[in-house]
Amino acid sequence: MTQITRRTAALLALLGPAIAKAAGRGDARSSTSATVQPKEGLEMTLRSTGNEKIAIVIYDHMTALDVIGPHYFLARLAGAKVEFVAKSLEPVACENGLVLLPTASFETCSKDLDILLIGGGTAGTLAAMRDAATIAFLADRGSCAKWVASVCTGSLLLGQAGLLRGYRATSHWIGRPLLKDLGAIEVNRRVVFDRNRATGAGVSAGLDLALALIQKLRPLEFAQTMQLLAEYAPEPSLRAGTPETAPPPVLAEARKLTAGFVSSAREVARSAR
Amino acid sequence: MTQITRRTAALLALLGPAIAKAAGRGDARSSTSATVQPKEGLEMTLRSTGNEKIAIVIYDHMTALDVIGPHYFLARLAGAKVEFVAKSLEPVACENGLVLLPTASFETCSKDLDILLIGGGTAGTLAAMRDAATIAFLADRGSCAKWVASVCTGSLLLGQAGLLRGYRATSHWIGRPLLKDLGAIEVNRRVVFDRNRATGAGVSAGLDLALALIQKLRPLEFAQTMQLLAEYAPEPSLRAGTPETAPPPVLAEARKLTAGFVSSAREVARSAR
Repeated sequence: MTQITRRTAALLALLGPAIAKAAGRGDARSSTSATVQPKEGLEMTLRSTGNEKIAIVIYDHMTALDVIGPHYFLARLAGAKVEFVAKSLEPVACENGLVLLPTASFETCSKDLDILLIGGGTAGTLAAMRDAATIAFLADRGSCAKWVASVCTGSLLLGQAGLLRGYRATSHWIGRPLLKDLGAIEVNRRVVFDRNRATGAGVSAGLDLALALIQKLRPLEFAQTMQLLAEYAPEPSLRAGTPETAPPPVLAEARKLTAGFVSSAREVARSAR
Repeated sequence: MTQITRRTAALLALLGPAIAKAAGRGDARSSTSATVQPKEGLEMTLRSTGNEKIAIVIYDHMTALDVIGPHYFLARLAGAKVEFVAKSLEPVACENGLVLLPTASFETCSKDLDILLIGGGTAGTLAAMRDAATIAFLADRGSCAKWVASVCTGSLLLGQAGLLRGYRATSHWIGRPLLKDLGAIEVNRRVVFDRNRATGAGVSAGLDLALALIQKLRPLEFAQTMQLLAEYAPEPSLRAGTPETAPPPVLAEARKLTAGFVSSAREVARSAR
């Protein structure tokens, strides 16, 4: 590829699909049929491009934010191709009425992935832990992907697929105690890297995970530019985001809320051994 | 409604649509046809419920994360009904291959909203600023909504609809200098409340905005529980998230990238006066 076409391809990847959405679903979900208006989008002088194949696995009743945060950063890796991969191409009903369209299925997903990333949830994650096709897909692609990543209770799915045995890992705080049932070494940190496994804590940790991951794939300056474009300088107005900082009654309430999930997930994890 | 049915309704709202996704799109996007499995989802003893009507406006080529962050918190407001509202019910192709299905159209969206929230982007936001139907919809619903909110350059859309005249507001840092062209008073803060207008800074600020907004609608303890469930205790691995903290060459690069958007958006904003 010439320098110019490489830059153009990378720019297209940054800009994403055309604004002018085609009439049908087939076109709406295509990420290659772009009619971009460069002057009005991001005009990057791209210093560093790649050609990563990235699969973000989505499934029914998952927590969409777990993966939409990472998608923001990963989809801006110039030259990379990011797919939302689901069991089939049918719409995926995430939690609370949020419906995403997959762009690839387990069947059509690339065999040799650079990044395999999965998010979590509660009831949906439990259903996925019990779904043989989902676990088989993760085990297969995860066995050869360059990076195997999760956010939130997505790590329980990686563990269920045997991908965390002997690895240090984290999860949503409700899921962390279950990691050892899946052969992993529980670590109470927001983002944990162990060899090519990258796991994040609950939901919002996807942004921290992805920002750390893109630093492994591109120069520091690229990651800084992406952080600045995301204006990622968080200022939560409360300080109850972890079991350590939340007021005890709030923690008790949250434990009560999630007790059913935790006990069912433990049962599934243990029966898999 | 009896106490029991109110609690059940609220629990359903928390749990969202069923895992067992129906075969077709019609069912997948319905948020009422839930066959929940309470033992495996969130089991909340809900102390405080509401009946808010919340519209999250989505449009082609927008930045999905701007609204998916807020959706996490808003959709967990027990008793509230959250819709993803678009011009039509066709799939909405956000940036970078992320396709969302709307659950309501401009036509079917409730007239009397409790919260109207819109996100931003670059090329997509510019197209929306120029789209008469979108601006008319925002002006109409925004004139009577209890809360009018935006994330990122979504504030330029509120401004274009005349909803920020005389209000203090913020935006993505690239959009903040344009606010005065729309009659608003620019404030360099992550989240700005002025009367019933709530505006957030760029992309990731949607989480801070929504966490602040739910504190206005529910008891403190509810918001703390939601923060804990989202494990919202961010730890960015870099410190380049604002123009003030980013290294100067990174800021220069980001300004270059977004210069086309800024100049076109300024032109649109000025021609609207």
